[in-house]
Amino acid sequence: MENLKELNQRIISLVNINLEKFAFDAGTFVDNTLDYEKMLKFFAFYGITEHHPIYFSFKDSNIAGSHFLGKCYVKNSVVYKTDIRGDELKKRDNINCLEDEFISIKNSLLYKTLVHSCSHNPISYEEFFIKNTISAHYANIHGSTVEGCFLGAFATVDLMNLYSCIVGEFSYIQTPNLFHKKINPGTIWIKNSDFEFKYNFNKELLDNYIGINSSHQPRGIIYEFIQQREKEYENKFQLIKPELFNAPLSSAVSPFAVIKENTFIGENVFVAQKAFLDNAQMCDGVNAQENSYIINSKLTGLNVTAHGGTIINSDVGLKVFVGFNSFLNGKEKARIKIGKNCIIMPHTIIDNDTALEIPEKHVVWGFINSQKDIEKNSISLENLSKNNNTLKIGDMEFKGDGQAFINVFISRIEHILEANGACYNGNENQGHGQNNQKIDFNFIQPYSTGKNKGLYPSIEIKP
Amino acid sequence: MENLKELNQRIISLVNINLEKFAFDAGTFVDNTLDYEKMLKFFAFYGITEHHPIYFSFKDSNIAGSHFLGKCYVKNSVVYKTDIRGDELKKRDNINCLEDEFISIKNSLLYKTLVHSCSHNPISYEEFFIKNTISAHYANIHGSTVEGCFLGAFATVDLMNLYSCIVGEFSYIQTPNLFHKKINPGTIWIKNSDFEFKYNFNKELLDNYIGINSSHQPRGIIYEFIQQREKEYENKFQLIKPELFNAPLSSAVSPFAVIKENTFIGENVFVAQKAFLDNAQMCDGVNAQENSYIINSKLTGLNVTAHGGTIINSDVGLKVFVGFNSFLNGKEKARIKIGKNCIIMPHTIIDNDTALEIPEKHVVWGFINSQKDIEKNSISLENLSKNNNTLKIGDMEFKGDGQAFINVFISRIEHILEANGACYNGNENQGHGQNNQKIDFNFIQPYSTGKNKGLYPSIEIKP
Repeated sequence: MENLKELNQRIISLVNINLEKFAFDAGTFVDNTLDYEKMLKFFAFYGITEHHPIYFSFKDSNIAGSHFLGKCYVKNSVVYKTDIRGDELKKRDNINCLEDEFISIKNSLLYKTLVHSCSHNPISYEEFFIKNTISAHYANIHGSTVEGCFLGAFATVDLMNLYSCIVGEFSYIQTPNLFHKKINPGTIWIKNSDFEFKYNFNKELLDNYIGINSSHQPRGIIYEFIQQREKEYENKFQLIKPELFNAPLSSAVSPFAVIKENTFIGENVFVAQKAFLDNAQMCDGVNAQENSYIINSKLTGLNVTAHGGTIINSDVGLKVFVGFNSFLNGKEKARIKIGKNCIIMPHTIIDNDTALEIPEKHVVWGFINSQKDIEKNSISLENLSKNNNTLKIGDMEFKGDGQAFINVFISRIEHILEANGACYNGNENQGHGQNNQKIDFNFIQPYSTGKNKGLYPSIEIKP
Repeated sequence: MENLKELNQRIISLVNINLEKFAFDAGTFVDNTLDYEKMLKFFAFYGITEHHPIYFSFKDSNIAGSHFLGKCYVKNSVVYKTDIRGDELKKRDNINCLEDEFISIKNSLLYKTLVHSCSHNPISYEEFFIKNTISAHYANIHGSTVEGCFLGAFATVDLMNLYSCIVGEFSYIQTPNLFHKKINPGTIWIKNSDFEFKYNFNKELLDNYIGINSSHQPRGIIYEFIQQREKEYENKFQLIKPELFNAPLSSAVSPFAVIKENTFIGENVFVAQKAFLDNAQMCDGVNAQENSYIINSKLTGLNVTAHGGTIINSDVGLKVFVGFNSFLNGKEKARIKIGKNCIIMPHTIIDNDTALEIPEKHVVWGFINSQKDIEKNSISLENLSKNNNTLKIGDMEFKGDGQAFINVFISRIEHILEANGACYNGNENQGHGQNNQKIDFNFIQPYSTGKNKGLYPSIEIKP
């Protein structure tokens, strides 16, 4: 294991140098998080399909339990139980794109992280890079280049670029660039030239759901919820040819998703690997991304459940969007009803004891415990569209053009539905729901003895 | 599948050009043998260990169900359910060896074939090549470079080099070089500057055990015996982490061997993948190579069961060698007893109805049905050692130095035992029994849709 341990030390020191200003020591996180036995135990796997450009290069790394699709380059890194999903990378024929884009991970440690979408860095058009960075449990690196950063547990960085930043746990950031910043835990922050949306979770309250201890290990209701189900995923990765769920021909259900009883899959549905469905009604055009949980719930149609979104005991109307890492924890006798065309902002927590209803066409954020909380944690699209100034509702502050904000979200939802093949007509508008039906996986593992124990041999796969 | 079918046509025509003189058409074999659905169904796998040089390169090929170890290069070839075992390749530090030797397979179709040992071609020291060649069911290419050849079912070419040859089914050839020759089925032929051993199976009799029909498909007792057990091997290849047999620490039992009830594994035992043990007593220093079957038998110690050797209802004495593809078919009430230090020549068939005993220190060959047959199918080492002329016993003809023949075999047996780690003392004399204890396997599969369906993407693996 000498070489693997040395590699980890190297990553720690590279991250620490970048975060010197904050007197941050990544060593505590790494030493308390990595379980070397598990880094030997789980296979990595990469997908072979005719629908995606293929390029995989793994060098001097441990990639245990991770999944790769598309074009991925990993060097001197630890990528543990992480999804590197390169099925939305830019293609060469796009304007300004000299070659097919690839995801490049160097000198980094990604722990149970999701990497997806394409890079939104105008100065790095073909390389979606993650360098000298550590990301913690269930972080999402979504269309974001990252260099010299530490992303806390359940943090999401979305369509942006970060340099030498610390993003606190359960924070969601979407602002074009961020340099040398430390973002407090539970910060929901979206900013561009037209508007700014900001919400901060109450620290004490958030701690019940996602907190971390002194060694950056997560705890709390959301983390425990996921941990209790982790074994079920692991069981999916034992067979070389896993069983396929019997879904309609227009839909893709990953053999590595957990599908439990009473689940219905409609047309043009996309269920990513590591999604968890239990008594879930997935009507036409619905998708469930990686690390999403849909339990005792009905998704009426054209719904997006973003990476890490959880929907329990809920009835979700047409075209409702549920953002990253949202946790909608309805109860059997206190269901959550969400009207059509609602936007549940990323990292929203709903944990109600009595039944609760969100009216249609609303934007919803923050923490909601009861019907009364909805007032100070939502706004109708209509009212928001009229705003051009500063708007304060509860702990949320919005500045700027409300209609522009709505437009951005609506066009993004349309894009996601399109990318997922939700509008496939049997001929046109093909997306993941169709292209990801037949992904064949190859399984790879590291040296299990000797000084390279835990490191993978160099592997290069081309078409 | 277009590209895969084109590849097969290309291989057929390259082989046919080489065998033009014999008016041989490889197309009949290929068209009747290949099952395209199965070429999609079975994974290929390669072993990662710290004990063997690692290099795998697979390009424009189908390698379904095949296993690779060591340094292997495959291009424009079909390698189906074949073992490419590069764990005895020459190392760079050998005299005359400029780089680590590698196995190179180009424009060839190997069907359920075994490739093992290192090349014995003085003009190709670093490249153990197989070019423009087709080999049929259960052929053994053992330490032999082959170019432009067709090897029939159950044929073995051993420590030699062949150019533009046809080797008939169930023939065993070991002569340094062979150019433009057609070897009849059932020919056992060993020749060097000191001696020559020749035996020809009676065609009609051999047909009962291994015959082929007009499209080169094997039939007969031996083939059916193997076919009946094939499913049990396939079942071994379903789990990503197969179960390990609980063997002593000095022994290696491949997780891809079939081990059935009442099997005992002693110290320094090596059981290769695709070996089949059922009520087998494998005492100290015993080995069972690929495609060997040991059933209701005891192997007393330091026994070699070469690739494809079958031992049923037999009691095998100390240091007995059972050669390639031998078929010792004892019955429950008619066991075969073999005295110590016997050499059962490759491709020997014993199929007895009454109990049978082979005295110690004998060389045994050909077809044996009863105790009486042993007389005309064996000779004591002592008597053989005295021979310097022509010796005819039954259908066997031996010419030359009997002692030299014995010396070659004894030193080979010693070499095999050493290579397999049969004499490991807990410190020195490590071999496959110790080095192959912990091989980790990676599983790979081809494109399953599109015009490349059935072809594997280009894969290169380095340390």
